[in-house]
Amino acid sequence: MLEFNKAPTYQSILEAAQNLRGIARKTPLLESHALNKEIGARLLLKCETLQHTGSFKFRGAYNTLSRLSPDQKKNGVFAYSSGNHAQGVALSAQMLGIRATILMPEDTPQIKMDNTRGYGAKVITYDRYTESREEIGRKIADENGLTLVKPYDNHFVISGQGTTGIEIAEQLIEQNASADICVCPAGGGGLIAGASLALQELSPSTKVYSAEPEYFDDTKISLERGTRVANASGNKSICDAIVTPMPGEITFPVNKKTLSGGLMVTDSEAKSAIRAAFHHFKCVVEPGGAVALAALLTNKVDIKGKTVVAVASGGNVDPGLYREILAG
Amino acid sequence: MLEFNKAPTYQSILEAAQNLRGIARKTPLLESHALNKEIGARLLLKCETLQHTGSFKFRGAYNTLSRLSPDQKKNGVFAYSSGNHAQGVALSAQMLGIRATILMPEDTPQIKMDNTRGYGAKVITYDRYTESREEIGRKIADENGLTLVKPYDNHFVISGQGTTGIEIAEQLIEQNASADICVCPAGGGGLIAGASLALQELSPSTKVYSAEPEYFDDTKISLERGTRVANASGNKSICDAIVTPMPGEITFPVNKKTLSGGLMVTDSEAKSAIRAAFHHFKCVVEPGGAVALAALLTNKVDIKGKTVVAVASGGNVDPGLYREILAG
Repeated sequence: MLEFNKAPTYQSILEAAQNLRGIARKTPLLESHALNKEIGARLLLKCETLQHTGSFKFRGAYNTLSRLSPDQKKNGVFAYSSGNHAQGVALSAQMLGIRATILMPEDTPQIKMDNTRGYGAKVITYDRYTESREEIGRKIADENGLTLVKPYDNHFVISGQGTTGIEIAEQLIEQNASADICVCPAGGGGLIAGASLALQELSPSTKVYSAEPEYFDDTKISLERGTRVANASGNKSICDAIVTPMPGEITFPVNKKTLSGGLMVTDSEAKSAIRAAFHHFKCVVEPGGAVALAALLTNKVDIKGKTVVAVASGGNVDPGLYREILAG
Repeated sequence: MLEFNKAPTYQSILEAAQNLRGIARKTPLLESHALNKEIGARLLLKCETLQHTGSFKFRGAYNTLSRLSPDQKKNGVFAYSSGNHAQGVALSAQMLGIRATILMPEDTPQIKMDNTRGYGAKVITYDRYTESREEIGRKIADENGLTLVKPYDNHFVISGQGTTGIEIAEQLIEQNASADICVCPAGGGGLIAGASLALQELSPSTKVYSAEPEYFDDTKISLERGTRVANASGNKSICDAIVTPMPGEITFPVNKKTLSGGLMVTDSEAKSAIRAAFHHFKCVVEPGGAVALAALLTNKVDIKGKTVVAVASGGNVDPGLYREILAG
């Protein structure tokens, strides 16, 4: 039986990279001469929007599902997700011939729900503002003998997401760049935990910061206080992919060691970053995926004269919302 | 003095690839599991939208400008362009310290005009429906001792664009794919002439087709008749990047030998392809850049069970138009 609760390490990320070779896409690290000139910095955008299923989540999901025992594979998997992890699990399950059941908030963007079903998963919904996905999830998984694949508190999920960091480090070298700063969106903190572990090893002079939306800056506050703090309830954000209640149990101890701090952006700043990605990178970025770019473009940390990396973590946005955002 | 009027060859494309190494971006060849399932084919999208300046045009422009003599560089360059060649020349000139003057249609999308000026070029406008850019261009170039860099009828421009074909062939091998069909947008035919020459050498079993908008299918008709035929005047298309009057003098003799035929799509089909690129690839594609994808998605050539490549040649679209297109 796999041990999901172990802390991730640089070694486990290397193993994930091996496991994902030829399966996950090496996404481009883009750069815009025009934007660089405008902001007086060299900005590189890691486009996980171009990963399979339109977000980095495929990496961790496939890394986990591919390692399940034959019995676990036969019984099927279960996941709860605001949408991107759902798609990552659903496609990975489809590729590996595993049945997947996914619990999603009933207000999940339509595109994410349609895509998850499109990959052959069974979708169940819940009310994210009144019900606990952890409780419902545990119950469904237990009753049906399914293996629960949590979206971030899982050794293999975090290790899979960390392969993003290995690629960034390799691509920086290929592009003759040395990054002063790397900013990464944080929901539960799986992507940034894995990526920061990899960067600590491969690009130790790069300071890594989390980016979160207003009212959901639990990683920022937890880093400041040195302990996991939950967000106040009752708030909403356009950044549906990363409105998690608090940092993860496995992810936070990593992030506490590896991160230089947390940055927070407003929904309006995230929207501006989406427009910048449209103009300068021709990339469709979803709100939650745009917070790192937003933090850099609004100088939440000083970028003048520096080389900075923003991870654009996902691009699954409904066309209606995207049209509104483009209208400015 | 460089000989601009020579025919391009596979050798001249290899030289361009060498010249562009580390300068032009190797753009990704994307694939969507969901779209493949939907269409019953394996479709790979070559995203030149992610090239510097948002289109493939940077390749040919840089390949040409970097080879100019010191005197030519000192005097400056001149180009006429509907927008993407303009940006390619402007950024290349800026990178190489050359002054650039660009003649653009007065109805060029704002984004293309702004970007061209943003790269430091001097922009002059004309009426594309009543004036001849060739005549105006020759006059301005001659009077000011500028080197005219034509958008497609130029040996080094075609050779630079052809590096797209080398990358496609390499990426097909990396992705364990062998392409039955490759479709490429055609305006004057520079990109497809270069790319088809490269594919003929590196992937000889791949049939290459041009894609063009309705009323501007001069390459298709010329291929059918075996000689260069001009489009009837008085028509318009949303595909501003490729509404050229007729196939090029240097490009057509190449395309006549290398292409398997020409495909034509309506503006409405191009718009659907733009929406498909948004959904499945998270890529912003402009109308003229989407015609190859459109031709494949509407089965203008039979794709069932086949492996097919579409070149998405550019992504420079005004947000207002893009919003309208997303609305469907």
